[in-house]
Amino acid sequence: MSIRIGIFGYGNLGRGIESAIRQNPDMELVAVFTRRDPASLSIRTEGVPVISAQEADQYTDRIDVMILCGGSATDLPVQTPMLAKLFNVVDSFDTHARIPEHFAKVDDAAKQGDKVAVISAGWDPGMFSLNRLYASAVLPDGKDYTFWGKGVSQGHSDAIRRVEGVADAKQYTIPVDAALEAVRSGSCPDLGVREKHTRECFVVAKEGADLARIEREIKEMPNYFADYDTTVHFIDAETFLRDHKGIPHGGFVIRTGKTGFSGEHNHVIEYSLKLDSNPEFTASVIVAYARAAARLAQKGDFGCKTVFDIAPALLHPAAAEDLRKNLL
Amino acid sequence: MSIRIGIFGYGNLGRGIESAIRQNPDMELVAVFTRRDPASLSIRTEGVPVISAQEADQYTDRIDVMILCGGSATDLPVQTPMLAKLFNVVDSFDTHARIPEHFAKVDDAAKQGDKVAVISAGWDPGMFSLNRLYASAVLPDGKDYTFWGKGVSQGHSDAIRRVEGVADAKQYTIPVDAALEAVRSGSCPDLGVREKHTRECFVVAKEGADLARIEREIKEMPNYFADYDTTVHFIDAETFLRDHKGIPHGGFVIRTGKTGFSGEHNHVIEYSLKLDSNPEFTASVIVAYARAAARLAQKGDFGCKTVFDIAPALLHPAAAEDLRKNLL
Repeated sequence: MSIRIGIFGYGNLGRGIESAIRQNPDMELVAVFTRRDPASLSIRTEGVPVISAQEADQYTDRIDVMILCGGSATDLPVQTPMLAKLFNVVDSFDTHARIPEHFAKVDDAAKQGDKVAVISAGWDPGMFSLNRLYASAVLPDGKDYTFWGKGVSQGHSDAIRRVEGVADAKQYTIPVDAALEAVRSGSCPDLGVREKHTRECFVVAKEGADLARIEREIKEMPNYFADYDTTVHFIDAETFLRDHKGIPHGGFVIRTGKTGFSGEHNHVIEYSLKLDSNPEFTASVIVAYARAAARLAQKGDFGCKTVFDIAPALLHPAAAEDLRKNLL
Repeated sequence: MSIRIGIFGYGNLGRGIESAIRQNPDMELVAVFTRRDPASLSIRTEGVPVISAQEADQYTDRIDVMILCGGSATDLPVQTPMLAKLFNVVDSFDTHARIPEHFAKVDDAAKQGDKVAVISAGWDPGMFSLNRLYASAVLPDGKDYTFWGKGVSQGHSDAIRRVEGVADAKQYTIPVDAALEAVRSGSCPDLGVREKHTRECFVVAKEGADLARIEREIKEMPNYFADYDTTVHFIDAETFLRDHKGIPHGGFVIRTGKTGFSGEHNHVIEYSLKLDSNPEFTASVIVAYARAAARLAQKGDFGCKTVFDIAPALLHPAAAEDLRKNLL
């Protein structure tokens, strides 16, 4: 019997979930829920209804896992606890500093409803977190580093678009090669913010805008750009559409550590992602964790979970004996 | 209270376990068990007794996890089922084709004894297996590749030493750069054995041996070398000792896959290890899984497990809330 999935929120991530479900024959999309007028939304999967978010509670018997595709700033802190009382849920809450608080609220809700809630699934938090954990458990005498990019930061792109005179903008975060090499060497360098990443901005200016002022305002923007080596390129709208319409991302988690009676041996563990589409890859991770959520619910193992709490085999459609035979 | 560890077998891996335990303050080495005369063995940890393997059954109350450090060919198929009736155990059984059979025997034994048995912990099988599983669960429409090296293959080195006229030898397995690049490009190439790895051999010949014959016999050896591009270097004993005494290894697990409604986006997931000491890194993985075994036993979750069945948080000494706060 397939795992019946609901999508709550239909932006880039929701569309990514819809497309990921097609790659997983054990899953079935039941409905898409939206806070917009359902009639205004056209989705890609024929025969699947678009329902008002208000009516989600009428679907508790028809959905095994509800996947929440809202934003971490204001949507998920409210939606995940609310829906975890009614459904098994998965979200991709990614405000690292607020994860403990989110976990506590969602755990209460899920336990009230005898549901499973997986939070912070994706790649960071998510696959990167897993790699930080495995590597630090295996090499306790070591140090880990996370680098992001090359990829588009939506938050930084938005910040540029708020500068007066900017028509459109895209910001790429780029790891510094020399820093990556220093880390891989095992020298455990102390790296400041500026040494790890640079920021490259592609900006379409409005007609007649003061380019020098725009560039200065971007480069001096506190928190977002002031602490980085930032490059600003002004390009025309046509070039922008042609070369910068994608949402690529990726990055590196590297841990180096020592073993031996005198710490005489060095080891490097490196995990990296190179993603053409950040939302579609995030969606692919979430869908694998939706499978795990359904299985945990069947076992009655309720409450809030993160990627740390979930045995890897639960993510994969194959039976345990086939995994042992083919992947171990 | 610390986790009390026994080491069963004291070769390279056993010594690696002994040294790894020192890096994990929640663990304590209780005894080393050997099939040799205990008096002939001198270990590195003061105050820890060396006991005859025959007497292991007298230690069931004093050891939380017994770590089996024998070989996969003949030791572990007998020792793991035998000891899993008496102790929680971890082994690094690495004959991939025989894992299902080993699992079944060990599972029976562990369930008879109400014990936890983790088999095939290490890096391949082990960390590489985990990465194959996670990557294929996340990118179902893709293909994965495992490359080994650059590193020493003990089996191939042994095979060379059996050639007449060879005094000593070391064989390095080396992944072919062009193959790695082709895989990373997302082109999903079909790669033959010869295209993925080369083999480089450093040989110390006995006085007056026929070097041409030795080289020919190595290169034509079926299964071991005949299917590879193999290079043979003859060096003197002094150079051998100076440059080839280590046991480095490592490798790459790469999966590429597509997402999107038309498979229009490519993704690359890459995991790599660069290890100065193969046995010490393997030991470090095993020790982390020994922690998991002790915790599973406390929960009464008995039977045989692999890395696929064990939630990542169980490997790490930190509490769940600290992991969420610091690593998620």
